[in-house]
Amino acid sequence: MNAQQAELLDKLRRITSADTVRPFGNFVLTEAVDLAPFCTDWRGRYTGQPLCVVLPSDTEAVAAVVSACAAAGVPMVPQGGNTGLCGGATPIGGEVLISLRRLNRIRYVDADNNAITVEAGCTLQVVQEAATSVDRLFPLSLAAEGSATIGGNLSTNAGGVQVLRYGNARDLALGLEVVLADGSIWHGLRALRKDNTGYDLKHLFIGAEGTLGLITAATLKLFPQPRETVTAWVVVTDPLAAVRLLGNLRAVAGDNVTAFELIDRASLALVLQHMEKARAPLQAKHDWYVLIELSGAQYQLHDILEQTLQEGVGSGQVIDAVIAKSEVQRLELWALRENISEAQKLEGISIKHDIGLPVSRIDEFIQRAGTALKAISPDVRIVCFGHVGDGNLHYNLSKVNALSNEDFIAQTPVINRIVYDLVCELGGSISAEHGLGQLKRNEVLQYKSMTEMNLMRSVKAALDPQGLMNPGKLL
Amino acid sequence: MNAQQAELLDKLRRITSADTVRPFGNFVLTEAVDLAPFCTDWRGRYTGQPLCVVLPSDTEAVAAVVSACAAAGVPMVPQGGNTGLCGGATPIGGEVLISLRRLNRIRYVDADNNAITVEAGCTLQVVQEAATSVDRLFPLSLAAEGSATIGGNLSTNAGGVQVLRYGNARDLALGLEVVLADGSIWHGLRALRKDNTGYDLKHLFIGAEGTLGLITAATLKLFPQPRETVTAWVVVTDPLAAVRLLGNLRAVAGDNVTAFELIDRASLALVLQHMEKARAPLQAKHDWYVLIELSGAQYQLHDILEQTLQEGVGSGQVIDAVIAKSEVQRLELWALRENISEAQKLEGISIKHDIGLPVSRIDEFIQRAGTALKAISPDVRIVCFGHVGDGNLHYNLSKVNALSNEDFIAQTPVINRIVYDLVCELGGSISAEHGLGQLKRNEVLQYKSMTEMNLMRSVKAALDPQGLMNPGKLL
Repeated sequence: MNAQQAELLDKLRRITSADTVRPFGNFVLTEAVDLAPFCTDWRGRYTGQPLCVVLPSDTEAVAAVVSACAAAGVPMVPQGGNTGLCGGATPIGGEVLISLRRLNRIRYVDADNNAITVEAGCTLQVVQEAATSVDRLFPLSLAAEGSATIGGNLSTNAGGVQVLRYGNARDLALGLEVVLADGSIWHGLRALRKDNTGYDLKHLFIGAEGTLGLITAATLKLFPQPRETVTAWVVVTDPLAAVRLLGNLRAVAGDNVTAFELIDRASLALVLQHMEKARAPLQAKHDWYVLIELSGAQYQLHDILEQTLQEGVGSGQVIDAVIAKSEVQRLELWALRENISEAQKLEGISIKHDIGLPVSRIDEFIQRAGTALKAISPDVRIVCFGHVGDGNLHYNLSKVNALSNEDFIAQTPVINRIVYDLVCELGGSISAEHGLGQLKRNEVLQYKSMTEMNLMRSVKAALDPQGLMNPGKLL
Repeated sequence: MNAQQAELLDKLRRITSADTVRPFGNFVLTEAVDLAPFCTDWRGRYTGQPLCVVLPSDTEAVAAVVSACAAAGVPMVPQGGNTGLCGGATPIGGEVLISLRRLNRIRYVDADNNAITVEAGCTLQVVQEAATSVDRLFPLSLAAEGSATIGGNLSTNAGGVQVLRYGNARDLALGLEVVLADGSIWHGLRALRKDNTGYDLKHLFIGAEGTLGLITAATLKLFPQPRETVTAWVVVTDPLAAVRLLGNLRAVAGDNVTAFELIDRASLALVLQHMEKARAPLQAKHDWYVLIELSGAQYQLHDILEQTLQEGVGSGQVIDAVIAKSEVQRLELWALRENISEAQKLEGISIKHDIGLPVSRIDEFIQRAGTALKAISPDVRIVCFGHVGDGNLHYNLSKVNALSNEDFIAQTPVINRIVYDLVCELGGSISAEHGLGQLKRNEVLQYKSMTEMNLMRSVKAALDPQGLMNPGKLL
């Protein structure tokens, strides 16, 4: 450590020692054992040693920390719950890692105005519960919600299982409070549905993965709690039938269709194999399943779903179906979907793709990608599942038993080329939900125009001229 | 005209003479009689003389025009249907006015993927009709839709009457094609619901009123056509009762509540006075009305609305109501709302405010603003109506008969100060829908932080370093 770094650490200690909540806490961590949990991502793929980890308690402290780092020319890495999947919140080396987790207050709940203002370090689950406590719904929902923080959800524009109806994190934000690269604070918290007084600046920071500024608080939309929910596990003939079934459902149930998740044979098999309590909803084994959920304020959702499934049987799209009869059964069905990632992790190493496609091209992608991959690796193990209503597939390959871990992972560039080139040809995106982080920031250059990259770079240069905000990520 | 301007005009003529659609047309207008329709805004408040009006036929021609103007250092004003309400599309003097109206092709409709790609010069009505032709809904809907173009709707983030359910123009865009300040083209047209591969650049251009780039095409979301619609004209006791009624409706009907428009006594009176075919839906005269519309795929909307209105009577919120029995009657009720602006124009001069408020503060605003304005002008004529579900009020003052036009308009700064200060105090916006244009770009400085203005200016400087994109507007 050099003198400048030591001076910065002193300054950070002075900033956090003014902490009135816990005035004698140590909020500037430097010991290896204390740093360890912050240094590695959830998947264990990325690790780095920061200069320190600092845990400010409020927005003013965050601003002071950023000012200090900016003055010292030291890069920063913001981190929330550290549940990201692309290494976007993992230090590379020598940064000041700014943990937002102590900014965990619910600042304001306005049920009448359907808005809630929360600090960035609140977990998603805490935000959901605050909404429920005033008979409202905050609909962002994903597997990591017990640990993921809302600041991270916004910085990565998280998706989840209810995007079909309620949209991404971006669609759920009304306003933000952001600490900018120079340490100034943009007070953009507003609870207005309509505000056309200049550029909509919040959209710069949402999905920017911390590279333009640090989100410290957000005002979010709330929704009415659904009065009725009906959930079904459906066997379809193929992905095309799934897309058609979705269209039929939406034609009769409109925006009451809340979730529509595709699950392939391999995904279900992994869950049944690795998760103790999991039971198959139906006897026979099939190739393609869909988990469907309708919700809303109406009373007829059960009948509507049942009728549409019957029609699906008649037209050859649907082979079999089970409609959940209780909340317990509903949760069991959802567990089959929600545990796929964990089951795949327990199975072993995998090559993952989080792709977006126009819904009308999903079937073509699955067919052509499968054919192309089998051509280079005949016993390839494809595990395909995802939010088919949004065109978002998690298209993963589990390690073939015959290969060693290293040999399998060595195939990644070839496999990615096949998958991503096809995605691009079909008008899709190589990262639908998870963002770019470290994982895809180079890959994306193959699929973006120079004009677009230059636009992004000029925005980055305007907001972070020193290039200290989460360098090595996204761009 | 100097030599450089003459040279630019020649260049523009050469660009548009390559027009293969109409190769012998004159698409560079310089004669006063030809320029006139482009020079003045719809309200007749702003007028200016451009250097010329150029009408390119496609995106490449637009890009060539912008390149030429950028090289010559000549400012540009983009214009669509010229229906804007803040002078944002009106030349100030000496600019090249680029009319987008010839970019009027529907490029692509994908009903399965619920997406449509259209050129910026298509009127909103044409886009709506293209959606209807494939049994889909494009829900953006506003009074000027027969003339307003989609490029302008996006550039101003237009709202309208269905924002409550479907969102603003911003929420309806999936991707854009934009000609940038240097004449390069950003090809950002994509039909994906989920795409996290970098900064979401489209949000820079939406609502930017042409100051960052020219939108030439857009990919927009489509929705299922509603199967059932029920519309009611309701008498409520006061604006607070209106907000409560809205809350009750949303609790039972959720996102089937599509429109919820507040109309005061004065607004209805103006429509009945000036619009020949208008008839009052109910005998007695009241102070506050709400026009409510539910729509969706369910069958019970009529019963739900009726029941909620009955409960409103029981709780003293609702005085009387009429539910439309036919499409004809539904259109008559909507005409009462849609003709308020026109009726106010026929009545004479007015001072208008398009404000946004948290829904929970609407009642307080109306009471306090009314009191404050009556204090300075006892016979003030307030005409108040708007999209109460979004917190957006059109809060206008019609000229008091005793005053001359000049004396009335001279009161504007005092009146604006009262209205806007109160709006700001209540956490609102001084321009909910209409944007800033020329009209409010100075006013807004009173209500925005220096940090926010600097952020906007740095974005502007990054994307338009020469400052040639619609100068004098928004910023």
